[in-house]
Amino acid sequence: MAEFESIDNVTKSNILQQLKSASPLVHCMTNDVVQTFTANVLLALGCSPAMVIEPEEAEQFAAIASGLLINVGTLTAPRQHAMRLAVQSANAANKPWVLDPVAVGALSFRTQFCQELLTLKPAAIRGNASEIMALAGESLGGRGVDSLNTTSDALPAAQLLARKTATIVAISGEVDYITDGARTIAVIGGHPLMTRVVGTGCALSAVVGAFCTLTGDRLQHVATACALMKQAGETAIRRCHGTGSFIPEFLDAIYQLN
Amino acid sequence: MAEFESIDNVTKSNILQQLKSASPLVHCMTNDVVQTFTANVLLALGCSPAMVIEPEEAEQFAAIASGLLINVGTLTAPRQHAMRLAVQSANAANKPWVLDPVAVGALSFRTQFCQELLTLKPAAIRGNASEIMALAGESLGGRGVDSLNTTSDALPAAQLLARKTATIVAISGEVDYITDGARTIAVIGGHPLMTRVVGTGCALSAVVGAFCTLTGDRLQHVATACALMKQAGETAIRRCHGTGSFIPEFLDAIYQLN
Amino acid sequence: MAEFESIDNVTKSNILQQLKSASPLVHCMTNDVVQTFTANVLLALGCSPAMVIEPEEAEQFAAIASGLLINVGTLTAPRQHAMRLAVQSANAANKPWVLDPVAVGALSFRTQFCQELLTLKPAAIRGNASEIMALAGESLGGRGVDSLNTTSDALPAAQLLARKTATIVAISGEVDYITDGARTIAVIGGHPLMTRVVGTGCALSAVVGAFCTLTGDRLQHVATACALMKQAGETAIRRCHGTGSFIPEFLDAIYQLN
Repeated sequence: MAEFESIDNVTKSNILQQLKSASPLVHCMTNDVVQTFTANVLLALGCSPAMVIEPEEAEQFAAIASGLLINVGTLTAPRQHAMRLAVQSANAANKPWVLDPVAVGALSFRTQFCQELLTLKPAAIRGNASEIMALAGESLGGRGVDSLNTTSDALPAAQLLARKTATIVAISGEVDYITDGARTIAVIGGHPLMTRVVGTGCALSAVVGAFCTLTGDRLQHVATACALMKQAGETAIRRCHGTGSFIPEFLDAIYQLN
Repeated sequence: MAEFESIDNVTKSNILQQLKSASPLVHCMTNDVVQTFTANVLLALGCSPAMVIEPEEAEQFAAIASGLLINVGTLTAPRQHAMRLAVQSANAANKPWVLDPVAVGALSFRTQFCQELLTLKPAAIRGNASEIMALAGESLGGRGVDSLNTTSDALPAAQLLARKTATIVAISGEVDYITDGARTIAVIGGHPLMTRVVGTGCALSAVVGAFCTLTGDRLQHVATACALMKQAGETAIRRCHGTGSFIPEFLDAIYQLN
Repeated sequence: MAEFESIDNVTKSNILQQLKSASPLVHCMTNDVVQTFTANVLLALGCSPAMVIEPEEAEQFAAIASGLLINVGTLTAPRQHAMRLAVQSANAANKPWVLDPVAVGALSFRTQFCQELLTLKPAAIRGNASEIMALAGESLGGRGVDSLNTTSDALPAAQLLARKTATIVAISGEVDYITDGARTIAVIGGHPLMTRVVGTGCALSAVVGAFCTLTGDRLQHVATACALMKQAGETAIRRCHGTGSFIPEFLDAIYQLN
């Protein structure tokens, strides 16, 4: 994969230290299924999560927090309204926000909303291959939350989307690609069992949100988020006996990263 | 218990293989407390969970998914509206849906809604003894989510309910009974500690929803769902040191089922 | 700390036995992030949790349950309405209710609501130092859900708040203080890692709610709740390898308390 950049261990470690020193406060507007896991992943990493969802509060808090995550997994009309206000407030306060377009393409309501959100300057977008292709208008989405495509399939769509939206797009899968449309970083690793535990992708998006709050080379920061989660996943896979013990092992492995 | 059928290990194993091959996409409209655990149980079993709750999306998704779970544990008026649309859509698309009538009887709002749902042809109903008796109009329900009756107490009510509603009723407890009003399967096993971990019953209902998507003898399929969860519970009990370690051990045991 | 009372082991053990015998049914209106963990903590302790949130149901259930928890972590306008009805219903039925003022001070909507709730006679209030100071009008709150103050800083505010509101105020931190404005109990122990797992404070508030249902010296009961959670936390810390394994170990340790 000579055409892709990669993240070396020293860079990764330096960026992680930068994150731990900053300990960003991440405003998570995420789906109901993954809230606890997302919070625990951010806490294990030394960040401070806060889930604030009432429209008035979400608007106020998005300006206070270091960064914002928008995940449409269990989108509702009231949540959509609050998300809009939060994104506008984050933009006004010059705080980065990240989009996780869960199951976009398959469902009209969220597809339309995600298209609207694309016009509101996300700092980064993270999804699986089918989601990124659907967001770029190149497929009808996956099967529920599952991807039906490989990340290689989705890379051209991701690059196009990144250029059109002037953002960073991260596609998760066996190989993660992180692209701004010009440069592309590839991150290898992880394990398929990680897709058999709910929330690993959604939590990664929150971690991407945390890393987007750092100053420096954002493409490298997002790639580091992807690389660290893969690394923790691999550690957890070695230590677990199934998808149940994977969860505490994964959080422990994140906590132990340095 | 000569009057009851049972599930032998070969049948159970064959039905499990059928489920793993099908890998059904289960649309879960369930309560806020058990969403993560429910998703992880379905994933450990090789199914694909998706929680979709906005009325428009729930209606659209219920027709796409393999089956639907309706759990009224944290029912709200907007959720009730979405559930109605989803059930009608599932019925129109000939997809099975399962009712978990959490705490029915004790609370008027959900009791009325569950009575309405009974007219919408659930493929199966799963609850504890007090819930099934309350749903059949024979008691005022349990203590919150806890049963005050044994499953033997509730069996006549379950059989009556199954006949009246032309559905399968599964009562969970020390002995599970799964009945269509004519035939009744008894499943022994499990452990009382399972009721000290939130969501074991709710997750079973989701698993029943998954098994209802298979072709064949649905009564056996629902009984297999109950038997497999009891079996995984027993494995986890042997390996755990309390209700905390039960959770990862239970998911691991489900993941290891074959 | 000669000016403070403490809880000896015999008292603590007796109060725990009283709780286990009573097995109170605790109505939890809590935030979306900690519902599962809160339920599992109460279950591990031998209590019966129930999350009921629809306004009509919340009003009905608050009169049936032994006690009520109000946690404003993910407050919304509809939830606020339901909480009001539940608190009024609990008061009418003479059932104790507990307030957890998550992130009060930092956000106007919930700050106003918490001030309103103070007029509705909570049996106890549990928060971190910044939250208690903000509730007493002495600071602008913490950083999201994190405290920026020590519990010693907050003790005068807690004592004042307890006297003004005629309630018990528990401040959680390295040292917990539990005060009714006249007497103050200090509880030492726990571990900073407990703040790196989401929900330990919120679950403690639910446990405080459970202990408030007992007859006897409520100040001692609330202090016992704090002491037992610190004790279980210390056990879990000794056995865990990070924030992930802390969670099952903590629940196991609670389950094993006697």
